[in-house]
Amino acid sequence: MASLRFDIAVSLDGFSAGPNPSEEHPLGEGGMQLHEWAFELAAWREPHGKDGGEVNASTPVVEAMRANVGAVVMGREMFGGGPGPWGEDPWDGWWGDDPPFHTPVFVLTHHAREPLQKDGGTTFHFVTDGVQSAFEQARKAAGDHDVSLAGGADVAQQFLAAGLVDEFTLSVVPVLLGSGTRMLDNLGADVRLAQADVVAAPGVTHLKYRVER
Amino acid sequence: MASLRFDIAVSLDGFSAGPNPSEEHPLGEGGMQLHEWAFELAAWREPHGKDGGEVNASTPVVEAMRANVGAVVMGREMFGGGPGPWGEDPWDGWWGDDPPFHTPVFVLTHHAREPLQKDGGTTFHFVTDGVQSAFEQARKAAGDHDVSLAGGADVAQQFLAAGLVDEFTLSVVPVLLGSGTRMLDNLGADVRLAQADVVAAPGVTHLKYRVER
Repeated sequence: MASLRFDIAVSLDGFSAGPNPSEEHPLGEGGMQLHEWAFELAAWREPHGKDGGEVNASTPVVEAMRANVGAVVMGREMFGGGPGPWGEDPWDGWWGDDPPFHTPVFVLTHHAREPLQKDGGTTFHFVTDGVQSAFEQARKAAGDHDVSLAGGADVAQQFLAAGLVDEFTLSVVPVLLGSGTRMLDNLGADVRLAQADVVAAPGVTHLKYRVER
Repeated sequence: MASLRFDIAVSLDGFSAGPNPSEEHPLGEGGMQLHEWAFELAAWREPHGKDGGEVNASTPVVEAMRANVGAVVMGREMFGGGPGPWGEDPWDGWWGDDPPFHTPVFVLTHHAREPLQKDGGTTFHFVTDGVQSAFEQARKAAGDHDVSLAGGADVAQQFLAAGLVDEFTLSVVPVLLGSGTRMLDNLGADVRLAQADVVAAPGVTHLKYRVER
């Protein structure tokens, strides 16, 4: 059955981004370390237009993350362009002219904006009426395929709290960041989990959980 | 080589105890859930004087935790008796007449107290001059064997920050506590880690790390 899921890299102390995010450090200070295991993979490099790379135990995990995705949901920060109204000539986001999604992408924001069509099948839709609406729009757009939550942490938390997540994978990196954005913050025992899969790979361990209802 | 190590159960959101610890809930509200995977194991039941129990993928992990331990270090809270001076007729702690340690146990406290000898080879020594002293006393008592940090989180953090830990295992339980005692708090990138071992078991995943120097 089509599911709603997310796959997010975290430090061992539970941060999905480091402190003090900036243009220089979009993932916060030290945050880029959380993704180094992925940058080496052929399975990551190919869809980002890069040659070469490794095949290791993370490869099937990354392939599964990308397989069968029919729509993506992300927060405004992950789309880019800073907070507040979009302005006259709004920025098109971090993702360039050929974003790696190739599906509709629903961006949660407080500020309305016309859809933004990019090459390769990616269209950004801006959703101003909350997570339930974003869920329903993405669910409909995805059809028989899965909906992938791209992040950030606050969006994943809102979807978990609303009972909309079917499964998620934390890719735990052996790094302590000490501060930053906590991945599983503002949640509690009402989110009931079951271990689904564990994959140890070079520089990362992928922990997959199902949300029980 | 003899090592200093700890093995602590944590929730997926990183807590080693729940909120509001009390006599009724010594591990905080919900905290006992972090140990349910262990209570079912023959390898846990036998040293606690109970018959029966399961053998599963956690068994060798629990056996390794207990093997080759020559001395134990713990915090005052883990010993028991509440904070402050010991008083006239001090409490003997949570651990009963035959504690499961069978080695010298060094208890970090601000309040001096005579050593407390129990059955089965466990003697509690009360250390008032800090983690380095507790480390040296435990290291000497352990001889060729390992020193085990029994907890709590604050003691483990002090030992990690002081560069005294060789390896540790987090036994990650698929539960969100939402608040409580954070296991890896007050630490940062100066503690450098390497993944050492990953064991998926029923109701828990054991993640072992080495501290790099």
